[in-house]
Amino acid sequence: MVSSAHDIEEGLAFTPKFDAEGLVTAVATDAKSGDVLMVAHMNDEALRKTIASGEAWYYSRSRKTLWRKGETSGHVQRVLELRVDCDQDALWLKVEQQGAGACHTGRRSCFYRAVPIGKGAGTRLEFRNAEKAFDPGKVYK
Amino acid sequence: MVSSAHDIEEGLAFTPKFDAEGLVTAVATDAKSGDVLMVAHMNDEALRKTIASGEAWYYSRSRKTLWRKGETSGHVQRVLELRVDCDQDALWLKVEQQGAGACHTGRRSCFYRAVPIGKGAGTRLEFRNAEKAFDPGKVYK
Repeated sequence: MVSSAHDIEEGLAFTPKFDAEGLVTAVATDAKSGDVLMVAHMNDEALRKTIASGEAWYYSRSRKTLWRKGETSGHVQRVLELRVDCDQDALWLKVEQQGAGACHTGRRSCFYRAVPIGKGAGTRLEFRNAEKAFDPGKVYK
Repeated sequence: MVSSAHDIEEGLAFTPKFDAEGLVTAVATDAKSGDVLMVAHMNDEALRKTIASGEAWYYSRSRKTLWRKGETSGHVQRVLELRVDCDQDALWLKVEQQGAGACHTGRRSCFYRAVPIGKGAGTRLEFRNAEKAFDPGKVYK
């Protein structure tokens, strides 16, 4: 049964709209600071495990595998709130980030570089809050 | 020339990684509250226009068209900061949302429903901050 746009947008049935690869976009923000920590993807299984456990699970497109966030690093994300957007193809996780950071490069957030505005394309990035929160060489094997 | 993972993650060259459809994911958060307002996509042109103008432009996958946010509603997004993530396939816009809201349903944010945690899949959504900030029937045409 196909849901109408009105049902999807105004209803209380959770009918996540997975894309052709079976994924939805998931944005994790730090519940305290409001900073975006990372943008990742979930397949149906990752979503079910997240809902059941209250900890963030994702699907890695590069490794083509289900992935419990923090499984290797210990930097687990406890999900304080999970929200879905109007057309149900994106999720927002407000998380309590355990450990030093969310990014595999060692930063707290994956968004540690700014694109200067008003200067045209081709401009160089600028580091912002780019200090390493942990040593990825030590944390990952 | 293909950039190495190290160049992409640690360098200052802005080399956004567009997907097979020529898009990157763009997350807009309210600069004041930290709330996620919407998740959308940008193609190269939308990104260039955003950088040049300091106002958010997106690419609508459903309408297959470039789209200046607020063009119809007046609910323009002024971009206070634009960030790119580690692998340069996602953007984070901290915006000053003009007008009542970002969502075409009339809410301030597109994320006005929560998925209860710990109750298993199939659970019903719960409205959160779902009061209408504007009347979409009046704003759109």
